[in-house]
Amino acid sequence: MAREHKLMRTVRVRNVQETGTLARLLAAISNMGASVGSIEMLTETAQSVVRDMTVYADDAEHMDHVIETMRTNEGTRVLEVRDEVLQLHQKGKIAIRSRFPIDSIATLRRVYTPGVAEVCLKIADDPELAQLYTSISHMVAIVTDGTAVLGLGDIGPLASMPVMEGKAMLMETLVGLSGMPILLNTKDTDQIIQAITAIALTFSAIQLEDISAPRCFEIEERLQALLDIPVMHDDQHGTAVVCTAALKVVAKRVGVDIGKALIGQIGLGAAGNAIGKMLMGLTGNPVLGADLNEGALARFERDGGKRSSLKEIASECDIVIATTGVPDLIKPEMIRKGQIIFGLSNPKGEIDPDVALKSGAVFAADGKSVNNVLGFPGIFRGAVDSRAPRITHEMLIAAVDVLVSQTPSGELLPNPLDKKVHRDVARAVAQTAIRQGIARAEYVPYV
Amino acid sequence: MAREHKLMRTVRVRNVQETGTLARLLAAISNMGASVGSIEMLTETAQSVVRDMTVYADDAEHMDHVIETMRTNEGTRVLEVRDEVLQLHQKGKIAIRSRFPIDSIATLRRVYTPGVAEVCLKIADDPELAQLYTSISHMVAIVTDGTAVLGLGDIGPLASMPVMEGKAMLMETLVGLSGMPILLNTKDTDQIIQAITAIALTFSAIQLEDISAPRCFEIEERLQALLDIPVMHDDQHGTAVVCTAALKVVAKRVGVDIGKALIGQIGLGAAGNAIGKMLMGLTGNPVLGADLNEGALARFERDGGKRSSLKEIASECDIVIATTGVPDLIKPEMIRKGQIIFGLSNPKGEIDPDVALKSGAVFAADGKSVNNVLGFPGIFRGAVDSRAPRITHEMLIAAVDVLVSQTPSGELLPNPLDKKVHRDVARAVAQTAIRQGIARAEYVPYV
Repeated sequence: MAREHKLMRTVRVRNVQETGTLARLLAAISNMGASVGSIEMLTETAQSVVRDMTVYADDAEHMDHVIETMRTNEGTRVLEVRDEVLQLHQKGKIAIRSRFPIDSIATLRRVYTPGVAEVCLKIADDPELAQLYTSISHMVAIVTDGTAVLGLGDIGPLASMPVMEGKAMLMETLVGLSGMPILLNTKDTDQIIQAITAIALTFSAIQLEDISAPRCFEIEERLQALLDIPVMHDDQHGTAVVCTAALKVVAKRVGVDIGKALIGQIGLGAAGNAIGKMLMGLTGNPVLGADLNEGALARFERDGGKRSSLKEIASECDIVIATTGVPDLIKPEMIRKGQIIFGLSNPKGEIDPDVALKSGAVFAADGKSVNNVLGFPGIFRGAVDSRAPRITHEMLIAAVDVLVSQTPSGELLPNPLDKKVHRDVARAVAQTAIRQGIARAEYVPYV
Repeated sequence: MAREHKLMRTVRVRNVQETGTLARLLAAISNMGASVGSIEMLTETAQSVVRDMTVYADDAEHMDHVIETMRTNEGTRVLEVRDEVLQLHQKGKIAIRSRFPIDSIATLRRVYTPGVAEVCLKIADDPELAQLYTSISHMVAIVTDGTAVLGLGDIGPLASMPVMEGKAMLMETLVGLSGMPILLNTKDTDQIIQAITAIALTFSAIQLEDISAPRCFEIEERLQALLDIPVMHDDQHGTAVVCTAALKVVAKRVGVDIGKALIGQIGLGAAGNAIGKMLMGLTGNPVLGADLNEGALARFERDGGKRSSLKEIASECDIVIATTGVPDLIKPEMIRKGQIIFGLSNPKGEIDPDVALKSGAVFAADGKSVNNVLGFPGIFRGAVDSRAPRITHEMLIAAVDVLVSQTPSGELLPNPLDKKVHRDVARAVAQTAIRQGIARAEYVPYV
């Protein structure tokens, strides 16, 4: 459960009709450290069942071994191995489309010359009308320099495009925003800020994505100071919202009072710093922070945190959150009985949740369980719809509260594809902006 | 016919069933200098007919007068006046959409984490694969600073957004490209070049749009030198392609040999300079150029043109093209018998074509008849699909030739909404790039 697999294949198998065949196959797969996602039954006869199974493995070699094992499993025949991930990515995952068809010269003359001139002149007279008569009202730039992508690190902006397109798909699917990837061919802070400032007029918000620390802090801060639209580094605040919501859900379930608990944050990069800050804002208490980087520690202290160490946090804290990127950093013997442990690094966390639980943790989660998708779509939709000039701590906490209240009993978080959750997050974020007096529009629900 | 109206309204009228009622109404409208586009019959009874009429007028006051005239026309009752232009523009005309739905957690895991990591790593290993597995392959930036928009001039980038969105709609509708407006909040040449260079990785081509001369020349030239994707200022080369095609169609019809004719270009801004250069490239002969701006004249001379004057061109040239932005610059008495006259400025040309014809011109056209829409979509599609690093004169001439060959008999140009024309332009442009040895991909038709 705790391993994050990097490769997916769809494997079509024919199993003999015999009790236990599928179970035996699945056991063989999991014994190899691989796992199975969806299983779809395609056809069934008296003799056999044909199924498509999504198989996850660590890498190409691992996948080969897994499929070889499947082939030799008694009662199983592998009919086909498909790479649906690559198939889906052919020609990319997004497109810019017309919101209605140009089906006649009459329509052409309305949307282009000469009709369009009237709309241009109206906006020239009153720039506010651009909100009403252009697509800017739903355009969000998803900006990256590709320096801190997933758990993959600095793979460059081009290679990060599939992630940015994934974000754009989620923006559209979940809240109807138009997310536009913007790949930056520079890592220079000043150049990034200049480029984004120069094109910001095109968008209603700027989502910074997968930009490495410490540049991400300065870029977000300076851009937000220059622009009157929300600028949010998702890896900081989106992650903090989802993590904090999960923590609140868990704490309530196991009877820990977050306001009184001693909280430790191991790893003070983009996510860790933001999680620590959010928890301090929420509880009013300092959070203990540990990092090997002196600059990160100093920043966390400036933000109200308390300088600590991995050892001290592991032995003293009631709640331990780790975002270090270092797999298995937390050893089983470091766990204190009754601790809540979030080892969030991807693809492999700081401790296997099963191991943490066996070692005495009252609850343990990894990065896979704390799905970032629950945060950014609704947060941006609410900020954009209320035309808030920035996203405040209070707006983020409103998002946290919606996620907590909508988490089904026994779950850690809501279903990330539940559109109602995202709509409710958007509404709560917008209403908070209005309450704070920073909204520039009345909130009109987008659906 | 020659007036370009800036305001459109849809007027619903009920006419009595009586021969001549509609004709009388149309006469009343045209007597006021307004005009009617589409007329759609909605219902008909023995007593009356209800129709929706698209009415064009110069401005709001003019429109009021026209509608008042319609109201008082015998046998006509105005039921409703609708502003369909503004209605169509509500919330903008484009959106960024997913190319397929995220309908399950299984799909989410394919398009986002963890599945997407494999695609990212493939591209990190081989950047060429970004063409195959991302949307970059169909993304074209439509970049403007809003300094030379339609006939409206420097209305700023925000007010130009409806035009950019119109271009994006046409890109998608006609050739399936994803056109992304990018509004520049700066007019500084260096800043524009820096900003576009910083984000160019996101796109397969850069369409510069409505950027004023002389900055447009330097921006295009320097950007193209920096980038290995096509950069084309549409107001220059797109316009030149369509104008040249129309000229070739007309010249053939009236029996003028372009290779032997003396050609004069009045107005050497973005469009005029490019038209003159294209005609020189095509004929091998110098074109006479006139402009009030010394810099523009000097540039045209450097490009092989011959410095001249309005007076000399009008009296000497067989073909006169004007792109000055000055209405009625060419007086009837200046027309020489047998001349071909293109007075292309919008919204009102350098001479009314009817007036030019009455004064002895063998053919006359205005800007409305030379529709830019015929150029940029196919040119960009062909350049992008062949992965040419730039758009050459030969590629543009290939586009001209397709437009000429596909113009229906008796017309000036093909129907701008005919997708086959755009597909053929794209193919010819791509094949020319391949023939010139600058293509980086074999041409695969996009449909």
